[in-house]
Amino acid sequence: MGHMLVLGGARSGKTGFAERLAMALGKFPAYLATAEAWDEEMEQRIARHRSDREDRFHTIEEPLELAEQLRASAPAHDVILVDCVTLWITNLIMAERNVADAVDELIEALDEITTSQIIFVSNEVGLGIVPDNAMARQFRDLAGTAHQRLAKVCETAVFVVAGLPMVLKGTLPPAGNDKRIHEA
Amino acid sequence: MGHMLVLGGARSGKTGFAERLAMALGKFPAYLATAEAWDEEMEQRIARHRSDREDRFHTIEEPLELAEQLRASAPAHDVILVDCVTLWITNLIMAERNVADAVDELIEALDEITTSQIIFVSNEVGLGIVPDNAMARQFRDLAGTAHQRLAKVCETAVFVVAGLPMVLKGTLPPAGNDKRIHEA
Amino acid sequence: MGHMLVLGGARSGKTGFAERLAMALGKFPAYLATAEAWDEEMEQRIARHRSDREDRFHTIEEPLELAEQLRASAPAHDVILVDCVTLWITNLIMAERNVADAVDELIEALDEITTSQIIFVSNEVGLGIVPDNAMARQFRDLAGTAHQRLAKVCETAVFVVAGLPMVLKGTLPPAGNDKRIHEA
Repeated sequence: MGHMLVLGGARSGKTGFAERLAMALGKFPAYLATAEAWDEEMEQRIARHRSDREDRFHTIEEPLELAEQLRASAPAHDVILVDCVTLWITNLIMAERNVADAVDELIEALDEITTSQIIFVSNEVGLGIVPDNAMARQFRDLAGTAHQRLAKVCETAVFVVAGLPMVLKGTLPPAGNDKRIHEA
Repeated sequence: MGHMLVLGGARSGKTGFAERLAMALGKFPAYLATAEAWDEEMEQRIARHRSDREDRFHTIEEPLELAEQLRASAPAHDVILVDCVTLWITNLIMAERNVADAVDELIEALDEITTSQIIFVSNEVGLGIVPDNAMARQFRDLAGTAHQRLAKVCETAVFVVAGLPMVLKGTLPPAGNDKRIHEA
Repeated sequence: MGHMLVLGGARSGKTGFAERLAMALGKFPAYLATAEAWDEEMEQRIARHRSDREDRFHTIEEPLELAEQLRASAPAHDVILVDCVTLWITNLIMAERNVADAVDELIEALDEITTSQIIFVSNEVGLGIVPDNAMARQFRDLAGTAHQRLAKVCETAVFVVAGLPMVLKGTLPPAGNDKRIHEA
């Protein structure tokens, strides 16, 4: 019944993997979208994703107050998929919030939420060349630090490549129980 | 006898790993190079690679018509190493072809090729900071989507780091049978 | 008693993981820092790291002569953590040294050092989009090649994501012996 962290690169299939996991584990799964549209490209992507999942998940939109929203939503949902942590961090930076403090609050909320499973999806962004601009470097550091902190308190953590999970910590539900988790 | 996907970063040793795999598995292995030289740096790299492998592989050069070429080459080769998918996608974009359609055709061809093993090498490019320019983002999305689709139809998929494979799916031939696969 | 390679992205927790490993394995562990401060951001990071570890490790600073320094320091230290290889490569490039030759010398030294365990930490930088500038591409190639060479001579190699190790080669000390390795 522990919380889970699903890390992966861009178009790695991490969200699809997490969605299959959430559907296999939850009877009343919610999808908590942290995305805010900054431009048309993003707007289209959000709308496409929303319509893709609307018959499977109850959608919650929350760009900033993640800890508070998880506490409020947990009683009605046995599984809440948070997609994604890196966008939430971007939103916090844009709103000039303190990211470390917000992560502290999130970790605290996770500790209290014992009747729902939270599945976090996040982008691994630290495996390329050091970015030229300081803001990208700062974002990369904040994301990496948040991932380490979440991995520590989650029961399960996976790294998804090409739609396939490598287990970093814990165990995945057996493939035999629900093939949808392992094969899209 | 299933097809294989070998993913890895730049200079991760993915091609060397796939070459050792192809030599261990095939009696008449072919090397299908998708590279086209756009500049001198690339020209030199292609020439160096070609001379490195010429006594071990029959070389085929095919920048665009991958599905067609694999169908044509499969009867003569029990193993065909395709190096690499990301360059093929780049070539398709440059030639203003529809990448999703080309990937569909490739997947269809793979399903039909049952007497040869195709080993795909490809660059994982989605684990750094979001690129500034829209074309790089589009390329990254197309590559990631292609990797997910190939991973689904391949029997084996690995992620190579520092020359060493992590298995994403399936099983590798045992190291005991041919040490060359696991140690360069 | 073999040497080890700990790869990971920026803020992946690779140094923390390697430090816990070094403390668990060594009675007289040394920390060999290759960092040279190029700017204030770096200066602050180095100072913070130094004060963080000063009661646990003997610190050695060596930006360039890594092989020589390891030979000199091995008699007094059963474990030497080198943090990090990518900064050492950067220093070599800045000093206009031949990186391939320096890696040759390092590999030779490793073969001779049989009474100490050397733990190398290095940044995986090859998993993003191809960088625009030729120098970044060259650095990426040199780093990737060095990682492959070190992985070949090390007994153990791991890839760290979110503070958690995936084993590429060899085996880690069992978590039961020293939990500090697996949980910060």
